[in-house]
Amino acid sequence: PQSKLPALGTTIFTRMSALAQQHNAINLSQGFPDFDGPDYLKQRLAYHVNSGENQYAPMIGAVPLRQAIASKTQRLYGHLPDKDSEITVTAGATEALFAAITALVRPGDEVICFDPSYDSYGPAITLAGGTIKRLTLQPPAFRIDWAAFNALLSPQTRLVIINTPHNPSATLWQTEDYRALWQAIAGQEIYVLSDEVYEHICFDPQGHISVLAHPELRERAVAVSSFGKTFHMTGWRVGYSIAPAAISAEIRKVHQYLTFAVNTPTQLALADMLNTGPDHYLALPAFYRERRDHFVRSLASSHFKILPCEGTYFLLADYSAISDLNDVHFCEWLTINAGVAAIPLSVFCADNFPHKLIRLCFAKQQSTLDTAAERLCRL
Amino acid sequence: PQSKLPALGTTIFTRMSALAQQHNAINLSQGFPDFDGPDYLKQRLAYHVNSGENQYAPMIGAVPLRQAIASKTQRLYGHLPDKDSEITVTAGATEALFAAITALVRPGDEVICFDPSYDSYGPAITLAGGTIKRLTLQPPAFRIDWAAFNALLSPQTRLVIINTPHNPSATLWQTEDYRALWQAIAGQEIYVLSDEVYEHICFDPQGHISVLAHPELRERAVAVSSFGKTFHMTGWRVGYSIAPAAISAEIRKVHQYLTFAVNTPTQLALADMLNTGPDHYLALPAFYRERRDHFVRSLASSHFKILPCEGTYFLLADYSAISDLNDVHFCEWLTINAGVAAIPLSVFCADNFPHKLIRLCFAKQQSTLDTAAERLCRL
Ligand SMILES: CSCCC(=O)C(=O)O
Ligand SMILES: CSCCC(=O)C(=O)O
Repeated sequence: PQSKLPALGTTIFTRMSALAQQHNAINLSQGFPDFDGPDYLKQRLAYHVNSGENQYAPMIGAVPLRQAIASKTQRLYGHLPDKDSEITVTAGATEALFAAITALVRPGDEVICFDPSYDSYGPAITLAGGTIKRLTLQPPAFRIDWAAFNALLSPQTRLVIINTPHNPSATLWQTEDYRALWQAIAGQEIYVLSDEVYEHICFDPQGHISVLAHPELRERAVAVSSFGKTFHMTGWRVGYSIAPAAISAEIRKVHQYLTFAVNTPTQLALADMLNTGPDHYLALPAFYRERRDHFVRSLASSHFKILPCEGTYFLLADYSAISDLNDVHFCEWLTINAGVAAIPLSVFCADNFPHKLIRLCFAKQQSTLDTAAERLCRL
Repeated sequence: PQSKLPALGTTIFTRMSALAQQHNAINLSQGFPDFDGPDYLKQRLAYHVNSGENQYAPMIGAVPLRQAIASKTQRLYGHLPDKDSEITVTAGATEALFAAITALVRPGDEVICFDPSYDSYGPAITLAGGTIKRLTLQPPAFRIDWAAFNALLSPQTRLVIINTPHNPSATLWQTEDYRALWQAIAGQEIYVLSDEVYEHICFDPQGHISVLAHPELRERAVAVSSFGKTFHMTGWRVGYSIAPAAISAEIRKVHQYLTFAVNTPTQLALADMLNTGPDHYLALPAFYRERRDHFVRSLASSHFKILPCEGTYFLLADYSAISDLNDVHFCEWLTINAGVAAIPLSVFCADNFPHKLIRLCFAKQQSTLDTAAERLCRL
């Protein structure tokens, strides 16, 4: 068949993980921990499976999970979403992003993305018949030039996609960024899709600032998060969207025919974890800060230049002192010759991103990070 | 936001299940068993969760599950699909259907559906920018008029969606149907999407005939199935598609940004169930035939006329001797006044389907069916 996504290959995460396996390299490419999630969560899953909670969950999500998400949102971001009309449980954040884009973007609409940007946004926009307008941010600070943003706006602009803590730049949105965004789009029918899956991996003392904390923006925003990164269970595939009722109604029309409902016992186990489980996500910043700092220290004697990391479990490393290869070739070379797999930054960007940067995942055991650092320091 | 699916409400299954709960009615509407799946499957899930198999599965599906699906397909349908290039594991059959439609249907393309048809096909086609051409089949036999089918074909026809065992008519495709379809579409670039989720609930002595058993058709077919109905676990949400490599490549481009990957421990548990579990799906026809026959016998003294059921766990019942209400109103009335929830047939059909038919799910314990039959016999 003629491809509707002709330029598209297999996602870089799949390709790099396969290359890592093939060459027996330490896999710091695809973002997932090499340690396991909380025992309590696993016990609760077995409990619900054995209690016979194995039939279709409600299409919009299991009641206790939506309730727990609502409470957590209020506690952390000062906004209580309505569990019945505003929260929708999805098959990972990936489905929530796809459903929101499919529901909101019509053929001819324009969507503004900040590059580097996560690789799933673009294909979803293309399949919806939309056009992507990219604003490329420059390392190391990846700050937004709001004049340039304003110049991208047009009567066709329908959606702006933001992501904080940001994968892969590891930067955060601040209150001023939201203020500038609101100033730019107020009065126009433009929606905001906010990818916040690393909400609990944030090293700023004031914590993650959600789009839901901005009273005007949240009236036209879809906030997306998930539990994979938060509970070290990236393979469980439960995410959700929070959006005003009128937007959620459109997202649900798509979701109900896209996956219908999400694995029932997993949803109930996650609800228990949030309601009665040990404190987990509140401890996450300290947990990951220690790993980050340890890894950065171990790389101090290397020829990589490490960029600041304010959130996520990713570090950006500049290898320009080591190699002239472009980042894709350097990552292949690194996997095969140094035994460490990483992600080239250019795959998150439109063509001709000229920087020599790779992304390293530090959601790994100390020993894994130590061996990786040793290998990287040899270069 | 302006809706991309303006005519669409919440799916009938969600609405009727909610109404059943509200009125404490026996829920024979949404199709799911009120009994549980095999213990072995549950044990294997706990095993894999506790073994730490909780990170991302491969995007196309866990290797052992794809292997097990390939073997089963060869054993049952005489065709061995390649596990690496032809099988893709999805978040339920719903995602497989959505991904296949999204991958194959371009704006302006036409898709032929046989009404009554499952309610997810239409919205997926609409979102892809396609047009639905419906051929309405008439009860009780729901046979296809191939001359009428040929008249629907046009240069824009891109896809034909078939479904066997058929939900809701409970009829089966025979070898002649496949032959007629091939005759009609050979030589044109038309694909076939075959929804076979009830493949193991088939009461014909010769068993289910898959599109994969037809050597020419399968070269342009996407066969979709899942494990929810087969293992009494409709809430687990694991499905898959089988298609030639070139078609699978396009489906995967969509799947990787739609859900990326499916719950890992659940996939591994299903692989174990298929590989080393007790014989389950081979026993399924006898298991459900007994329920069907018992339920039909209990309804013999009612004023419903029961249509033949060759497959699926659904019965169609004609209520024209009982009420003049249209089927949607009759189902509401039945839920509220008789305490039995059913699905009106017209929701599977384009406008003005004039029959007085409801669908009853018999995937229920004997005692549930007995109470339901008692209530239905009183009318
Ligand atoms: C869905 S696989 C990719 C995981 C991830 O979010 C990342 O590595 O950026
Ligand atoms: C996905 S909920 C609907 C279940 C079902 O397949 C049916 O009842 O027809």
